[in-house]
Amino acid sequence: MSREAAREARGRRNTRQAKGLKQLPWRTYRNNYDPIRVLSEDQLEAIHQASLRILKEIGIEFLEENALRILKEQGADVRPGSNLVRFDPDLILEKIRTVPKTFTLHARNPAHNLTFGANHVNFGSVASAPNVSDLDRGRRPGNFEDYCNLLRLAQSLNVVQFLGGYPVEPADLPPNTRHLDALYMAATLTDKVWHPYSLGNERIEDAIELMALARGISKEQLAKEPSVFSIINSNSPLRLDTPMLQGLQAMAKAGQPIVLTPFTLSGAMAPATIAGALAQANAEALAGLAFTQMVNPGVPCVYGGFTSNVDMKTGAPAFGTPEYTRAAMAGGQLARRYGFPYRSSNACAANAVDAQAAYESEMSLWGAVMGHANLILHGAGWMEGGLVASFEKMVIDAEMIQGMAEFLQPLDTSEAALGLDAMKEVGPGGHFFGCAHTLERYETAFYSPLVSDWRNFENWRLAGAQDAAQRANALWKQALGDYEQPAIDPAIDEAMRAFVARRKEEGGVKQI
Amino acid sequence: MSREAAREARGRRNTRQAKGLKQLPWRTYRNNYDPIRVLSEDQLEAIHQASLRILKEIGIEFLEENALRILKEQGADVRPGSNLVRFDPDLILEKIRTVPKTFTLHARNPAHNLTFGANHVNFGSVASAPNVSDLDRGRRPGNFEDYCNLLRLAQSLNVVQFLGGYPVEPADLPPNTRHLDALYMAATLTDKVWHPYSLGNERIEDAIELMALARGISKEQLAKEPSVFSIINSNSPLRLDTPMLQGLQAMAKAGQPIVLTPFTLSGAMAPATIAGALAQANAEALAGLAFTQMVNPGVPCVYGGFTSNVDMKTGAPAFGTPEYTRAAMAGGQLARRYGFPYRSSNACAANAVDAQAAYESEMSLWGAVMGHANLILHGAGWMEGGLVASFEKMVIDAEMIQGMAEFLQPLDTSEAALGLDAMKEVGPGGHFFGCAHTLERYETAFYSPLVSDWRNFENWRLAGAQDAAQRANALWKQALGDYEQPAIDPAIDEAMRAFVARRKEEGGVKQI
Repeated sequence: MSREAAREARGRRNTRQAKGLKQLPWRTYRNNYDPIRVLSEDQLEAIHQASLRILKEIGIEFLEENALRILKEQGADVRPGSNLVRFDPDLILEKIRTVPKTFTLHARNPAHNLTFGANHVNFGSVASAPNVSDLDRGRRPGNFEDYCNLLRLAQSLNVVQFLGGYPVEPADLPPNTRHLDALYMAATLTDKVWHPYSLGNERIEDAIELMALARGISKEQLAKEPSVFSIINSNSPLRLDTPMLQGLQAMAKAGQPIVLTPFTLSGAMAPATIAGALAQANAEALAGLAFTQMVNPGVPCVYGGFTSNVDMKTGAPAFGTPEYTRAAMAGGQLARRYGFPYRSSNACAANAVDAQAAYESEMSLWGAVMGHANLILHGAGWMEGGLVASFEKMVIDAEMIQGMAEFLQPLDTSEAALGLDAMKEVGPGGHFFGCAHTLERYETAFYSPLVSDWRNFENWRLAGAQDAAQRANALWKQALGDYEQPAIDPAIDEAMRAFVARRKEEGGVKQI
Repeated sequence: MSREAAREARGRRNTRQAKGLKQLPWRTYRNNYDPIRVLSEDQLEAIHQASLRILKEIGIEFLEENALRILKEQGADVRPGSNLVRFDPDLILEKIRTVPKTFTLHARNPAHNLTFGANHVNFGSVASAPNVSDLDRGRRPGNFEDYCNLLRLAQSLNVVQFLGGYPVEPADLPPNTRHLDALYMAATLTDKVWHPYSLGNERIEDAIELMALARGISKEQLAKEPSVFSIINSNSPLRLDTPMLQGLQAMAKAGQPIVLTPFTLSGAMAPATIAGALAQANAEALAGLAFTQMVNPGVPCVYGGFTSNVDMKTGAPAFGTPEYTRAAMAGGQLARRYGFPYRSSNACAANAVDAQAAYESEMSLWGAVMGHANLILHGAGWMEGGLVASFEKMVIDAEMIQGMAEFLQPLDTSEAALGLDAMKEVGPGGHFFGCAHTLERYETAFYSPLVSDWRNFENWRLAGAQDAAQRANALWKQALGDYEQPAIDPAIDEAMRAFVARRKEEGGVKQI
């Protein structure tokens, strides 16, 4: 069997659904609805112009020597004796012109490749939580066992299309080799797109090596077929720190995309107005994205929006608020103004998998989807403003994502669908339960839920009166029980293991 | 004091917030965003044409003699020896031309008047539930005490702008006089717009009498200033029953608006396709609305959309599904095609006030708001597909409605809001907590939630780890504790009491 054929066979095997979960099949999604525009054209221009003024009059700090050297070479105004860089608007607008409008991220399983840009929508797992929780064992610090189980659950849920990072930090692994174990597991327990952290260049270089091995291709080929992505958070306000800038450069040089996401909590790291926070975030993103093109013109990248607000009384961050939703949609308008693919998130601040968790996540998802985000990070499992990855929330989010995914499907208004013959057959006052038109559509007529319980109260009560979180608890256990590791060529697995072992012998990363 | 001045003074007193609840002030809302269009122009036309064919080729049953007489007089094709009425498309399209595009409903308190049509959005209470529940006492049959307390809670919540009917059925009151007690309470425990049931003409006539007394105006004046509205549900498929048709005629003659709402559960009372259910619902609504104009040309009315689907495996009705959301938006497209004000709902099927209740309601609310519904029935408190009114859900829905209401507010992108001076003051790597720009906005910068708890996990846990439903439980008790009956002119109150007493002496309604 040729390598190509083997890869295809793997693809077919691995797109199989988890045995027991009744869920939507693996699909990719496009949003054919017009985005919701919360800013008028004049307002959009006002924010754009404010961002250009921030870049010209205030500037951005780049805390990395090599970055400063490149910026200076490329014509940015590196202020003498400082890390502050000011930008002429024309330089920014010229540099970002080479950002591709769309690109494909290649997964180990080619059936799981994803496209970013235009009206493509892709949903990812929770990422980067320091803690993990479930209803049985409560809340606990991140660890490798839960990390692996969350990977298995993400692999089992078809609407979780990529890993947005470590679903939870495997904090019981030593920091200098943690990424090797974590990424090997991401590459083998799942066959979906994954994400290494830009904490210095070494982790990125290891990740790229591992991904080339996982895909069985050269790094030259990998540079042409981006296969990993990394989030770069600016250190708002107006700063990019050393590890992030090292990671960004390593990614860009290897032809892999970064997602430049200012994390601008209005009232804390950004002005106490959504417009001000957006203007600042936009300035930070433009500077970072222009810099990627200075490092490697044409390298794909994504414009990340993550503007929310703090509770002004307590300083507590808030998510899924009306401010958050409008910022997510406005961020999409800004990204489209420049032609960037766009990233948003499914965020919530709730401490329990309750109504608050659901309504905050819905407000975030609607902001993301109708803001035409291409990449929805933290799609499934995010709680407490990112401090917890929850097993139950991952399942409930999958239900909410499935709902959005089905909402994106076009309605069939064909003659057959309109069903006038059925209405003639049934007539006034009749019912459609048994008519041919209904029977033909019995299996597939409507969305079939993962978590929702539609039984009447009495049947629901007699069956134990479980709420949505308790039902989600049973579902993730079922998914883990049914989980099968996706197939992998033993030679590829062996090569990855050998790489991890060698890098561990070398002591892992020097920078911590 | 003149009557006008007295009314204004009442208005000012009564718009006061409930003492303790931190909530948005009373406001009216407009949706300046473009509606989401789930149907292309061609698809919209296909559904419209299918509806006209249903009306011409199949017809609608009108189970009421006087209605049949009017329909025949006005040129509809009443099939001999039956209740079946067929319509020429031109007749329908000509008759609906007199439906007003917008109208105002007058509340007892003029500060609570509401406008329907164009891009106005109004949110109502739960209505017509046979059961009631709260966390303390569980689920129980509807009764007068809970009815009154739900009225008090609806009056206390500013985003509950009108009563969509009886929040719960006061089933312990005798049926023939129940409406007298129920409507007297609606007229006195609240000062918002309310709704009598179209169960025959007598209840409607009593309601109109009561509302004229409550507003201190003549019935002639009331006919010029619509002040009550009633829902007319077609008996899908393709039938309007006797009590509803009597109520419709009584309302129309008195110049009061009805909301013609086919309740089309796809797969049960309508074809097992959303397009088919919409075509059928549209035919039913067009026939009913055309009929209102035959009774009283120019009387205001509303196009109601309530299309969802059943679970095909069990026949259980489902709400807040992706089908429901798209149908709500498509219904808005149909209503706007004809120039009708539009009604949708905040529906859910959940049995508990949990994540399912919240995500189903959010899907319904987004469908309604982005479908540009003018009237969102069952906005607060609806559970179990309408079988339960929940005290906790009413509070959580109020939070979700507040979120939508704030989402509809335009973003301020003025120079001051953009805050470049603040960014200059704070500089790279600083924070905005103490800067002048933030301090100026401290009190009002962001949405302040009703139910959401944004404390960190440890503080939340130490404070009792209450979930959203438990917090909502405390909030409705607080609202009822703080409730003050809105002021009323004692002479008006006395006149209403005397009317109720007289009608009770007469034995109430003859028809049950």
